Amino acid sequence: MRTIDWVDGAVVIVDQTRLPGETVWLRLSTVDELVDAIQRLAVRGAPALGVAGAMGVALAAAASRDPAVVAELVRRVETARPTAVNLARGARRAAAHLPSFSAVLDEALRVRDEEIHSSGEMGRLGADLVTSLCGPGVRLLTHCNTGALCTVTGGTALAVAFELHRRAALGEVVASETRPLLQGARLTTWELARAGIPHRLAVDSAGPFLMARGEVDAVILGADRICANGDVVNKVGSYAHALGARAAGIPFICVAPESTVDLSTPSGAEVEIEDRGAAEVAGASAPPGTEAVNPAFDVTPASLVTAIVTDTRVWRP
Amino acid sequence: MRTIDWVDGAVVIVDQTRLPGETVWLRLSTVDELVDAIQRLAVRGAPALGVAGAMGVALAAAASRDPAVVAELVRRVETARPTAVNLARGARRAAAHLPSFSAVLDEALRVRDEEIHSSGEMGRLGADLVTSLCGPGVRLLTHCNTGALCTVTGGTALAVAFELHRRAALGEVVASETRPLLQGARLTTWELARAGIPHRLAVDSAGPFLMARGEVDAVILGADRICANGDVVNKVGSYAHALGARAAGIPFICVAPESTVDLSTPSGAEVEIEDRGAAEVAGASAPPGTEAVNPAFDVTPASLVTAIVTDTRVWRP
Repeated sequence: MRTIDWVDGAVVIVDQTRLPGETVWLRLSTVDELVDAIQRLAVRGAPALGVAGAMGVALAAAASRDPAVVAELVRRVETARPTAVNLARGARRAAAHLPSFSAVLDEALRVRDEEIHSSGEMGRLGADLVTSLCGPGVRLLTHCNTGALCTVTGGTALAVAFELHRRAALGEVVASETRPLLQGARLTTWELARAGIPHRLAVDSAGPFLMARGEVDAVILGADRICANGDVVNKVGSYAHALGARAAGIPFICVAPESTVDLSTPSGAEVEIEDRGAAEVAGASAPPGTEAVNPAFDVTPASLVTAIVTDTRVWRP
Repeated sequence: MRTIDWVDGAVVIVDQTRLPGETVWLRLSTVDELVDAIQRLAVRGAPALGVAGAMGVALAAAASRDPAVVAELVRRVETARPTAVNLARGARRAAAHLPSFSAVLDEALRVRDEEIHSSGEMGRLGADLVTSLCGPGVRLLTHCNTGALCTVTGGTALAVAFELHRRAALGEVVASETRPLLQGARLTTWELARAGIPHRLAVDSAGPFLMARGEVDAVILGADRICANGDVVNKVGSYAHALGARAAGIPFICVAPESTVDLSTPSGAEVEIEDRGAAEVAGASAPPGTEAVNPAFDVTPASLVTAIVTDTRVWRP
């Protein structure tokens, strides 16, 4: 199963808003459809968004021979979501091969294949690191979804858990539910159950306390953008877990492909943090009209990050 | 409006599981009904639970003349929930007047009246403290519900916000939604809107990041138990906010009546933390059968607490 792929002239994705209840495949044959899927998080996760960005340019190239029209379509793909660097980067990589549709598509398929390869590398490097830091039987806490559903196959941080499980070196995973859209509760638990990995779900705010109580040996999660100084921009709640890990004296490990490292962004202070509005937070619970502040991401300063594992290296910022 | 009161031989509460959609009053005339209401959080909040505990003994005294039967009923009230000291303390205060129903009821009404009085005192002392620390126009972040709904009238931490608003010294309140039962999203927003106080709702895990981003001047919340050393046991997520406040260099203030201070518990390590099971967390989101770890409370060490405001003093542990 691939989370995102190119099939017969269209992007095919599994609709992550329907999981775990239903496994629905969507065929996206226009830029409009792809941008909509990206914005409502039917496809999400930095590496998968990189592939989506590159394949989106292929859709744009197929849509028109007018360079101005194509350029506008590419711009819409690039800016569908602002925080993850991979989306724009994947789009720009493919756009460098315009106007040839086949050259653009070849590049998009290369982006896909590189993400598949890098997932395996991250799993191995990350598992080696975790075992060296924490020994066997490690109990991990993770946030959001960093499994196959955020990449093409495998995953980033969750690829490390899968690899540790294959090595019989994993004790348990605590999955943080990840409000407001519950990617941890819906997607991470689903992937862990499919892999037969022992796991428990926790509300996001319990993470630091579970660490203080000695129930977690390491925090491991992904990144939507890694800044030049090692600041990690990731799903909101990551910073709170990092504070908890520091207070508990346990490692805080970020796992993401090199394509997530953005040397042109000096630090987290320069990153635009997407605010996704009140509806996701207030929902049916709060009184009608309740306003919200809903940053989708936060910034964990490099000083709280034990290590960043990419597909090529272990970086200790 | 009183959150809990004694009316014509029964305990009358507003059912907090139905707010903010509906305002439903429940008449609880047996210990069974009261214990059920306590366990499903129809009545909640440490001060309100103190009143519930005392009035529960009145229900027990009215139920039987057999001391063994009454003692068993009192034990059930005392142990309906394990973490808040006020419940057992309120029950024991009233039980000291057994077997006389009228003496027990008089004591229960005294507990109620003391809680009403102490709310006003906390509001004044807390508002003085917050203004002295942060100046006017203060932007507060609060967690869970600490308004009138957790006391009889007024509140604890939210009483401070109400008092600051009356003094025109309040900028805004960020209400943390408070998973899993969303007391912040459902109850705090409802109380703030009724009081005309500007407020925004945020997911729990955004709190530390909003502090880092400079959007919060102080964290203010309640307590279910304050230990002899100043450790604060409160709704899960409080500890994460405390870590965020420390990292941001802003005050972390706990507001609770003296009845919440438990000198017989040396520190948070000795407090039994209620685990409320998987259903509240996994709910409809996670795959069926997903296990959870669901501590209802956490422990904020005294070292992270700027001040504890009670009805009689400002304590800097």
